[in-house]
Amino acid sequence: MTVENRLAGILAPVVTPFDAQLKPDIPRWLRHCRWLVENDVGLAVFGTNSEANSMSTAEKIDLLEQLVEAGLPPGRMMPGTGCCALPDTVELTRKAVSLGCAGVLMLPPFYYKGVSDDGLYRSYAEVIERVGDARLNIYLYHIPQIAQVPITLSLIDRLLRDFPDYIAGVKDSSGDWDNTRSMLERFQPRGFDVFCGSESFLLDTLRHGGKGSITATANVNPAPIAALYREFEQPGVERRQAELDAVRGIFQGYVMIPGMKAAIAHYLDDPLWSRVRPPLDEMAGAERERLIAGLEQAGFEMAGLSTA
Amino acid sequence: MTVENRLAGILAPVVTPFDAQLKPDIPRWLRHCRWLVENDVGLAVFGTNSEANSMSTAEKIDLLEQLVEAGLPPGRMMPGTGCCALPDTVELTRKAVSLGCAGVLMLPPFYYKGVSDDGLYRSYAEVIERVGDARLNIYLYHIPQIAQVPITLSLIDRLLRDFPDYIAGVKDSSGDWDNTRSMLERFQPRGFDVFCGSESFLLDTLRHGGKGSITATANVNPAPIAALYREFEQPGVERRQAELDAVRGIFQGYVMIPGMKAAIAHYLDDPLWSRVRPPLDEMAGAERERLIAGLEQAGFEMAGLSTA
Repeated sequence: MTVENRLAGILAPVVTPFDAQLKPDIPRWLRHCRWLVENDVGLAVFGTNSEANSMSTAEKIDLLEQLVEAGLPPGRMMPGTGCCALPDTVELTRKAVSLGCAGVLMLPPFYYKGVSDDGLYRSYAEVIERVGDARLNIYLYHIPQIAQVPITLSLIDRLLRDFPDYIAGVKDSSGDWDNTRSMLERFQPRGFDVFCGSESFLLDTLRHGGKGSITATANVNPAPIAALYREFEQPGVERRQAELDAVRGIFQGYVMIPGMKAAIAHYLDDPLWSRVRPPLDEMAGAERERLIAGLEQAGFEMAGLSTA
Repeated sequence: MTVENRLAGILAPVVTPFDAQLKPDIPRWLRHCRWLVENDVGLAVFGTNSEANSMSTAEKIDLLEQLVEAGLPPGRMMPGTGCCALPDTVELTRKAVSLGCAGVLMLPPFYYKGVSDDGLYRSYAEVIERVGDARLNIYLYHIPQIAQVPITLSLIDRLLRDFPDYIAGVKDSSGDWDNTRSMLERFQPRGFDVFCGSESFLLDTLRHGGKGSITATANVNPAPIAALYREFEQPGVERRQAELDAVRGIFQGYVMIPGMKAAIAHYLDDPLWSRVRPPLDEMAGAERERLIAGLEQAGFEMAGLSTA
C-alpha cells in the first residue's frame, strides 16, 4: 500500500441490474459503471446497495473480471469482499487485489451475532495473512443496522496497530455522526481514511479531515455529489449540501435499492433496470409513480445516462 | 416427496471440527456423524451450530459428498442449504436432493433486514422452481434471534398453500413456545412437520403432534434425547425431560458452539476438537475448566464416543 494511491472522493455502491433469469446483466452494469466514472464517482461494486450478498462469490469474481477487462479503472474500485465464510472473503479479496483494485470494502462475517472483538480481529487477521499481498488495502465496513455486527472503535484501534499497512480506512454507514466523528478524530490522523456512508454527512466529514463518501445515492445523483466533494472549501457549499440532502430525502422515503433501480429504469426508459433479486421486492405501481412524481417535481435529472 | 419417508425424531446440527489450517477435519467429522447415527440421532449437518455459515458452498458440497460416500444414511440427513445468495442455495439444495437427503433445512436469505414476506416467498419459490426435483423436502428454518429474518406464520401459510409437495416442515429455534404451538396447531394438521429447536420443548412438541427436535445439544447428549423421543408416552418422562434440561442448562451457561466443542475435546481427550472458525472464539482457560467441572459434577458422560 502506498498512501499516494489511496482512494478518495465519492464512490457508489453500484446497483446491479438483473436479466429475466435474475442473472447480472453485464452490459447494463458496465454502462452504469462507465457513467459513474465519467461523473467522477468511483466504483464500490458489491456493496449493500449492489445486492452483493444476494450474489455468489463466483458471480462476483466474474463481474469484477469483466469490469477490469472492459477498461474501467481499478484505481477507482473498492469492491465489497466481506462474506460470511472466510474462504469466500479470501478468494474474492485475492481476486480484487490481483486485478489491481485500489481497495476492498470488507463487511465482518455477519451471520453469527454477539461475536467478540477478538473473533472479528482474528477474522480480519486471517484474511490479511491468507491474501498475503502488500497491495491489499482494507476498508472496514460498519453498517450495524443491517449486518448486526458492528466494527467498534476498539477493534479499529487494534487492527490499525497490528496491521497499519493493510487497514486503510472505514465506511461508516451507521448514520450516527458522533461515531463518524470519533473515527475521524481518533483514527484519521493515523492514516485511516474515513468515508461517510451517506452524502448527508459529506461536508461534515470533509471538514473533519475525512476522505469522502461511499453512498447509495451516488448511483443516481453522481455529478452533484462529486462536485461538492471537489469544491467543499468554496463559498455556498451549505446550500449545495442542502440540495444533495433534498434528493437523498426523496429516495429515503422508500426502500433504497428498489427505489434507485426504479428511478434508473424510468430515466433510461428501460424497465428491465427495476428488477431485483429476492428477497428484495421490485418497486411497482402506485409507489413507483409516487417516487417518480416526487423526483420530477424536484426537477431531478440523470444527465448523460443512456442506454447506448 | 412421500409422507412415508418423512424425517422424524431427533437430529443434531452437527458440529464441524477444523484442522490446523481451519479446514473441515473430515475424518473427525465422519466419526462424530457415525456416533450420532448410532445413537439414533439424524444429521442436520450445516446448521447454525455447525458453523455452516462460516463455510463456503464448495466446502459444504465436498463434505456432503464425503458423508454419503462414507455410507452414512441420506435418509437421516437434513443438511442446511439456505444461504444469502440464491445461486448458492440452489446449488447446495440441488446437491442435497441428488444425494438422496431426506430433507433440507433452509434459512431465509439473511443479509438484508426488514424484507417483506413477499420477498421471502419469492426467494423460496425461486429455489423450488430452480431445483425442480420432486424429491425436494424443505424445512423452513426460523431462528430470528440470529438470522434476524423471521419465518412468519403467514409466510408458512402461503408457502404451504402453493407448494404443499415441497414445504415439509419447520425448525422453530425461536425459543418461543407460543410460536411453536401456533405452528403445531395451524400447520401440523396440514402435513407440515414441526421440529422444536431445543429438546427443552421436546415433550411439549410431541404432545402437540410435532415430529421431534433438531437441537444443538444432541451433539453431546444424543442417546438420552433420542430415548425420550421414542418413549415419550411412557410413565416418568417428566423426570427424563428434566434430566435433559439439566444437561442443556449447563451448556447454555456458555456460548454454545465453543462449549460443545470443548466438551467433545475433553471427553475424547482430543484438543483439536475445540477449534472454531473466526468470528467465533475457542473456549479456553478458566471458562473451559468451569464447563468441564460442571459437566463432571453432573455425572455427564459421552458414552461410546471414541477417536478410533
